[in-house]
Amino acid sequence: MTDSAGGADRTGTAHAAALDAADPLASYRERFVGAGTPLVYLDGNSLGRPLAVTAERLAGFVTDEWGGRLIRGWDERWFDLPLTLGDELGRLALGAAPGQTAIGDSTTVLLYKMLRALVDDARARDPRRTEIVVDTDNFPTDRYVAEAVAAERGLTVRWLEVPTDGGIEVDALGDVLGERTAVVVVSQVAYRSGHLVDLGAVTAAAHAVGATVLADTCHSAGSVPVALDADDVDVAVGCTYKYLNGGPGSPAYVYVAERLQGSLAQPIAGWMGHADPFAMGPGHTPAPGMRRFLSGTPSVLAMQPLADLLGLLDEVGGASGGDAITAVRAKSVGLTSYAIELADAWLAPYGVELATPRDPDRRGGHVTLRHPLMREVVAALWTADVLPDYRDPGGLRIGLSPLSTSFDEVRRGLAAVRDLLAA
Amino acid sequence: MTDSAGGADRTGTAHAAALDAADPLASYRERFVGAGTPLVYLDGNSLGRPLAVTAERLAGFVTDEWGGRLIRGWDERWFDLPLTLGDELGRLALGAAPGQTAIGDSTTVLLYKMLRALVDDARARDPRRTEIVVDTDNFPTDRYVAEAVAAERGLTVRWLEVPTDGGIEVDALGDVLGERTAVVVVSQVAYRSGHLVDLGAVTAAAHAVGATVLADTCHSAGSVPVALDADDVDVAVGCTYKYLNGGPGSPAYVYVAERLQGSLAQPIAGWMGHADPFAMGPGHTPAPGMRRFLSGTPSVLAMQPLADLLGLLDEVGGASGGDAITAVRAKSVGLTSYAIELADAWLAPYGVELATPRDPDRRGGHVTLRHPLMREVVAALWTADVLPDYRDPGGLRIGLSPLSTSFDEVRRGLAAVRDLLAA
Repeated sequence: MTDSAGGADRTGTAHAAALDAADPLASYRERFVGAGTPLVYLDGNSLGRPLAVTAERLAGFVTDEWGGRLIRGWDERWFDLPLTLGDELGRLALGAAPGQTAIGDSTTVLLYKMLRALVDDARARDPRRTEIVVDTDNFPTDRYVAEAVAAERGLTVRWLEVPTDGGIEVDALGDVLGERTAVVVVSQVAYRSGHLVDLGAVTAAAHAVGATVLADTCHSAGSVPVALDADDVDVAVGCTYKYLNGGPGSPAYVYVAERLQGSLAQPIAGWMGHADPFAMGPGHTPAPGMRRFLSGTPSVLAMQPLADLLGLLDEVGGASGGDAITAVRAKSVGLTSYAIELADAWLAPYGVELATPRDPDRRGGHVTLRHPLMREVVAALWTADVLPDYRDPGGLRIGLSPLSTSFDEVRRGLAAVRDLLAA
Repeated sequence: MTDSAGGADRTGTAHAAALDAADPLASYRERFVGAGTPLVYLDGNSLGRPLAVTAERLAGFVTDEWGGRLIRGWDERWFDLPLTLGDELGRLALGAAPGQTAIGDSTTVLLYKMLRALVDDARARDPRRTEIVVDTDNFPTDRYVAEAVAAERGLTVRWLEVPTDGGIEVDALGDVLGERTAVVVVSQVAYRSGHLVDLGAVTAAAHAVGATVLADTCHSAGSVPVALDADDVDVAVGCTYKYLNGGPGSPAYVYVAERLQGSLAQPIAGWMGHADPFAMGPGHTPAPGMRRFLSGTPSVLAMQPLADLLGLLDEVGGASGGDAITAVRAKSVGLTSYAIELADAWLAPYGVELATPRDPDRRGGHVTLRHPLMREVVAALWTADVLPDYRDPGGLRIGLSPLSTSFDEVRRGLAAVRDLLAA
């Protein structure tokens, strides 16, 4: 438990420096606002740091694009932006071929719209499909929306019991699936424990009983490989303000597999999703393709930061000679492994328990550490400019945004936790 | 039809200059991006110009607030921003006492949520209330949402027939109201003709038969006095990208009269609207007050430009020694009256017809002029940097954002229309 710089000490500053020196993505960190300050930011899975270029982009957007093009901007670029930017997101971070991803609304609104669409589709195929399967450890909004949609459409929620730190086991999931299952709502990475589920296996299990899958990729997109096409996922939604650095409350995204787009009808029909938006005639005719899943006018301004992060991912992919997320994931595993190593060495002696799987193939981009005093510890960390998140019960949640976090930052953060527990 | 500067010629440049010189709000125009360029912008009711200060605010938001405060921003300011900014909007532009206005979602999503809430409330009070009343000239989204909600909740749409340029007559509305009416969906200003309806009279008529009112104030807020409290309106929604200069696709707002907040339940239950958002336990308990009408995480970035415009309204109110919207409305009436005067002198000889009421008390902030060739005229105007809007059938729609439009700009725009019709 020393802070020595000795080379053999894997908890020392020299080892952190060596890890940073060996990190092929290290140089990207300085693109982010505040990365050069002493502040330790360990909450990238709640709100990612902004890219410095985003400040310029937004000022330019106001002056040149909004202020300069005015209403012409809609014809020139904005009207298609939810779909063109969606395609870029799909290509760079979701494993989705073009024409299947759109940006807009919030995750909550998209969960509602798409669960309504999937439930109605399932019941039209077979009225006996009356169950929405959700796990008890899913994010609150996913659970609330499942309960609300079930109540209003005359279905029931079939709960998959998952212990707080347990994660979804596909075998256990199989036990609650059957001919009554309409839709399975699943998060790829659990918001508390960080458990990573095999979306392909979940989808195969759902499809095997004739059900569909609504995947929440909020806690995975941008840090974990998401392969929506290859995994045969039906519909996915997610937010862009965590590992996609879109800014507080930035718009969400929705993926709908091409094979389903024609048969799914979402309930909130606005002019943006109309087949001929400017005809403005009587009755709503949904647009073909992804446009039908749009409702109102999406915020063009709020989509701009995401465009910057996608530009950076494109650059990372080019520099690494492959898929950007493969490189990002490698660093993510390195960061979470290092955090666990430090927790084992420094925090376990104080009774801190790891809530996240030790197997890197079974965890996402964050690590949760439990201790009865953790709420107080996190409050004290915040006053010392060390910013992790806290989640009941007693969970210190460390969200390690791979492109903007250094190994040294992880080390300084965990050292601060250690010092507080010691005090 | 000369361009002479003769003082007696009310179509001449000198008269426009005199109107601008006499305009107490003239100096505010230079606060907006592009106001000093030769471009003529006559589409402020589709997308308002940005304030120049908004470019700086957004850059500063990225660097200092998002990048500097990071996740702490939610605790410090962002979590309450939909309600605090909503209160400011309510005070400055909606005639709403605090605690009744929230910012978020899009107008379409809010129309859906609130119509669902109102319909369910009406039927809970009286199951025989099975009709949603909407006028045939309402904005397409309002009509689509009314039809969708009626279909999914087992109600019918009772259409109030309104001729394209006719506007809603309260007497005619009375003919379709009755004990079957659940909700009346009404736009304060008609998106094509510019007809302004008396919201207080509409609400009184609806209340007289035991129905409630969902008012769409998209085309009125920021240019026309809106008095939601005084008019006893039940629920109102609207967008912020027209006369409130919030930027393309900026978030919408919802007003719910305090007396109804406890009894209305909206269908899209997310963690942001929960009574205890961070408990993250089972089941959804709606928050008290306006928060229950929020669903997902709203875009904090996208709310920033609206804050600038509200700051300007506050300044206008202080300088005029009264209510800002009263001063804005006076200029709005001046601009639309001048546009009609020029159209009478210059365009009527070519067969152009006024679709908008001549009585300023019966029109909003835009003027629509019809001619069979108007689609082609508008296309040609755009290539000449004169930017009005076009709406079928044959409508040149001139949206005169009071704070950012000069009388000279109106004159130059109408002169360009005249010259194209002459050519």
